[in-house]
Amino acid sequence: MSLLEDLQWRYATKKMNGSKVPKEKLDYILEAARMAPSSSGLQQYKIIVISDPLLLEKIKGIAYNQSQISDCSHLLVFAAWDEYTDDRVSKVFNAMMDERNLPHETMDGYKRTILDLYASLNKDWEAHHAAKQSYISFAMAIAAAAEQKVDATPIEGFLSEKLDDILKLTGSGYKSTVILPLGYRDSEGDWLINMKKFRTPIDAFVTEMTIQDAHDIGELPMSQNLDVYIQK
Amino acid sequence: MSLLEDLQWRYATKKMNGSKVPKEKLDYILEAARMAPSSSGLQQYKIIVISDPLLLEKIKGIAYNQSQISDCSHLLVFAAWDEYTDDRVSKVFNAMMDERNLPHETMDGYKRTILDLYASLNKDWEAHHAAKQSYISFAMAIAAAAEQKVDATPIEGFLSEKLDDILKLTGSGYKSTVILPLGYRDSEGDWLINMKKFRTPIDAFVTEMTIQDAHDIGELPMSQNLDVYIQK
Repeated sequence: MSLLEDLQWRYATKKMNGSKVPKEKLDYILEAARMAPSSSGLQQYKIIVISDPLLLEKIKGIAYNQSQISDCSHLLVFAAWDEYTDDRVSKVFNAMMDERNLPHETMDGYKRTILDLYASLNKDWEAHHAAKQSYISFAMAIAAAAEQKVDATPIEGFLSEKLDDILKLTGSGYKSTVILPLGYRDSEGDWLINMKKFRTPIDAFVTEMTIQDAHDIGELPMSQNLDVYIQK
Repeated sequence: MSLLEDLQWRYATKKMNGSKVPKEKLDYILEAARMAPSSSGLQQYKIIVISDPLLLEKIKGIAYNQSQISDCSHLLVFAAWDEYTDDRVSKVFNAMMDERNLPHETMDGYKRTILDLYASLNKDWEAHHAAKQSYISFAMAIAAAAEQKVDATPIEGFLSEKLDDILKLTGSGYKSTVILPLGYRDSEGDWLINMKKFRTPIDAFVTEMTIQDAHDIGELPMSQNLDVYIQK
């Protein structure tokens, strides 16, 4: 099956049957999430995997009692940086330069540029920015699960501060952003399974534009060339 | 090739050769982006496709002169809602209910719940939340391009307010969030092509947790059951 067929097959499973996802499929999904591109290649997020029934039950209690959280095989919790610091960015860039046999200083100018830019946008913006990167990884996990015919339910409906507390993320520099139960659908008990998938029609979703449709804003201000080490 | 192999194949192409992506591949990538799940199924984003060289040149000028923007075949601009309104949400939910042959009122309670929740978090949060959803769609486009052996460069480095102005998004209810040039790599001219892909090692990226590792926060406050119509 193609990616598109996989995406048509998948749906936000509302009821899971408790069956276990084999380790090789779980590892495959995590590896796809790890391969996701991220801004400046920083991978400013990580994944916590939970399959302990007691801990899942605890998390269900702060997630509107959504049954998939206890009926899944594994719960993936995505957590992203709460801010950008010189230390965090340097650590990643230095490891990247080591891997590429380049001196650490190679990225110093670029590092200064992004840290100054982000600082001007404030901490709240930084946390949102890091969270956005985690959504790319999250999407790759969703696509990989669909390819492996593993069901998955993207969930934002949980009390993130409580989850951070339970998972000891509070004060760690990471905040939970989104969670993904992996498992198998309970075809009998799932009210959504037979509902038609709904999407914005393609003509409303995609618009083409040419220079004639655009707004002429005159001469443009930017001439500098940012040597962008973004997202390998 | 599997999704994982596609993700290992892809990289953030730094130099493209100007070759055109066939229409059927472009359509496939856009369709994968359209199939992405989104919070509450709202698809609070859309895509603008640009292939006009004059308009691409204009956009390059507000995007640090990154060459891919003019050497690509098509540029995808992702734009997300700037806020949640009753009107916008109702329009999508009504269309969804029509598609599923259910009365519009079916989702009234849920709609009220999310609008009240989001309003309590402020407009800025709403724009970030909608932008995050667009990143899921963005990721599906990246994965689909890789599957089709089309190169793509995830780019956040552009002046978004200028781009909104050029594309007449300002005041339209949408804000540009991220852009994706699609095309083909110029293997000779791309400094990144032979650099080793760097990712956080799997042991640092993924952690497993059990109840023993977790923080006991005692009795949990949430008992209500949110009838979640999230993300089909």
